[in-house]
Amino acid sequence: MAYITINKEHFAHNLCVIQEHLKMINPQKNIQVGAVLKDNGYGHGLEIMSNLAQQNNITSVFVKNYEEAIKIAHKFDSVTFFYGIAHKKITNIYPTIHSFNDIFNMERIIGDLSGMGVELKVNIGMNRNGIELRDLEQYIEMILQKNMRLIGVFSHNGYGDEIDDEFQRECDLHDILKEKVRQLSRQLGFPLPRFHSLSSSCTLRAKYSDDDLVRIGIALYGYLTNEIEIESAKNLKPILKLYANKISTRVLNPAEKIGYGGKSIIHEKTAISTYDIGYGDGMYRVNGSKKVLLPNGKEILPRSSMDCFSCYDTANEICVIDDAAYIASLFDTIPYEVLTRLSPFIERRII
Amino acid sequence: MAYITINKEHFAHNLCVIQEHLKMINPQKNIQVGAVLKDNGYGHGLEIMSNLAQQNNITSVFVKNYEEAIKIAHKFDSVTFFYGIAHKKITNIYPTIHSFNDIFNMERIIGDLSGMGVELKVNIGMNRNGIELRDLEQYIEMILQKNMRLIGVFSHNGYGDEIDDEFQRECDLHDILKEKVRQLSRQLGFPLPRFHSLSSSCTLRAKYSDDDLVRIGIALYGYLTNEIEIESAKNLKPILKLYANKISTRVLNPAEKIGYGGKSIIHEKTAISTYDIGYGDGMYRVNGSKKVLLPNGKEILPRSSMDCFSCYDTANEICVIDDAAYIASLFDTIPYEVLTRLSPFIERRII
Repeated sequence: MAYITINKEHFAHNLCVIQEHLKMINPQKNIQVGAVLKDNGYGHGLEIMSNLAQQNNITSVFVKNYEEAIKIAHKFDSVTFFYGIAHKKITNIYPTIHSFNDIFNMERIIGDLSGMGVELKVNIGMNRNGIELRDLEQYIEMILQKNMRLIGVFSHNGYGDEIDDEFQRECDLHDILKEKVRQLSRQLGFPLPRFHSLSSSCTLRAKYSDDDLVRIGIALYGYLTNEIEIESAKNLKPILKLYANKISTRVLNPAEKIGYGGKSIIHEKTAISTYDIGYGDGMYRVNGSKKVLLPNGKEILPRSSMDCFSCYDTANEICVIDDAAYIASLFDTIPYEVLTRLSPFIERRII
Repeated sequence: MAYITINKEHFAHNLCVIQEHLKMINPQKNIQVGAVLKDNGYGHGLEIMSNLAQQNNITSVFVKNYEEAIKIAHKFDSVTFFYGIAHKKITNIYPTIHSFNDIFNMERIIGDLSGMGVELKVNIGMNRNGIELRDLEQYIEMILQKNMRLIGVFSHNGYGDEIDDEFQRECDLHDILKEKVRQLSRQLGFPLPRFHSLSSSCTLRAKYSDDDLVRIGIALYGYLTNEIEIESAKNLKPILKLYANKISTRVLNPAEKIGYGGKSIIHEKTAISTYDIGYGDGMYRVNGSKKVLLPNGKEILPRSSMDCFSCYDTANEICVIDDAAYIASLFDTIPYEVLTRLSPFIERRII
């Protein structure tokens, strides 16, 4: 059976790369690393990744929705989910507020929201999610009026990867946001929430931060997709490998064909095997429009099937992915997509 | 929260298209429809699809592996799984034998295999999985010697979609296979197993069959990818739709940018919303290299994110996929891949 390995030493190493950088850019402040475990731990497996985060003393994590949050809440001090609403009040699970509707919808389901912790997302230029900076006071008043706990106020810098002035502009807007929250805290008398904004690439390119937390996703998994030169990004190590096992082997003669539509044709007498990973497992379908190689240099012969692929090899086991960036470059995408689409039904093993 | 609807009437209709065709090509024989529910029901959801199959009086189904089989075995007379081995003897769960190793590996785990039902897969030209026709007798002798029950002998015609003489050549080889099994049954004195070979496209293009069963996957879900003209394929109706819900709305001014790297730029003052489907949910990532439209004609603005996309719309809910063939054509693939990669964590609803 196919399986995925997750390298715990690489995970600890990647975390260390981030922590070292944080110490360097602000030795006075102990900026925490919050692990982003959303989308089934970027496809690595929520269960296994939350265990690794816990073992590495990470106390704050971020997931996609309430369903992910309740699975792992017992392992952390705080679990913030980015989208959708909570169905119950749970002390250390914090929904993200993007609009008044989020509050009204939770009130409709849960009733009294008093005591519930929430984080407020503020748009600083990606123009995607979150409330507008100009509406900040109104939102905070509503949260206080409903006796909710404002755990955090955060933004998301969408220009971490690009050579673009927008990166700095968004950093400046985040500072303005923080100053505004501090003023409101004094004025309205609520405890100062935690602040965070920086993702993996933003963190590693930042020269200074006095945030309480950074939200690290892709770098913990060993990748970065920066256009700009970030020295420490080169030290990141992918933590995931995907392995397939052999289904069967046969020896074929010249002119014999393989797979759907007989797309691959044999040129000389060869032993060929089928391995149990296909596009139904989340690997990209290989249809012959590009050549896709395995880490051992052998080709995945077109066309690959839903549950298997053929290859000129006879090994019992074969590594299919050891670097998601290679597959991403072939399929005009980024490692994030290659990783998140890996089927959660594939067995995960810690190594 | 994003969700998927599965249309039960379309499913029943698609089943009917197949059944009508089977009656036409062999009115004497009641050829059964076996439903292929592998890979989480081609991404539609194993639970929901197995319920629909059961409600439509389908009694034989096919899944990917033992893990899928045990989840649904109580609903059917027979559940055959294509890959990997069984971990326990269960009366109505049948592993597929592709090699002697499958038998040895099961013996190592389970011990005595007597009484276990198995199906034997024979290669008739795809040169992918299954044993060779010349080894048939040897395999059947081994199965009998271990007192296993030979439930079925089957092949897979890999040329259903193509205008190619191979289709007929493989049909002929399947007939030879069946004749050989019948001879061995008389000679060695074992009950005749069931025979099957035809997939969706092969079934609908076949002019005759006397198999016991056809294995129908993609057509039940409402698609076919045939190059050759198959009249009845035009009547198939996709059963799945994917819907996203709104996260937030804002009004943007000319020159404002949206999403990672500010890839989309606003030309006139517009209301824009974010919806809760991204590539982490199994939708393809939209990076701007091609224009991707929603069923309502609006564009998914590049770049889409892991958990959301932006769009010039303000509706609370929006349909993202109503025809997987459209997405497949944009991303150089087939509906199977678009469907199987949909995250199993998205809620499924029968309509």
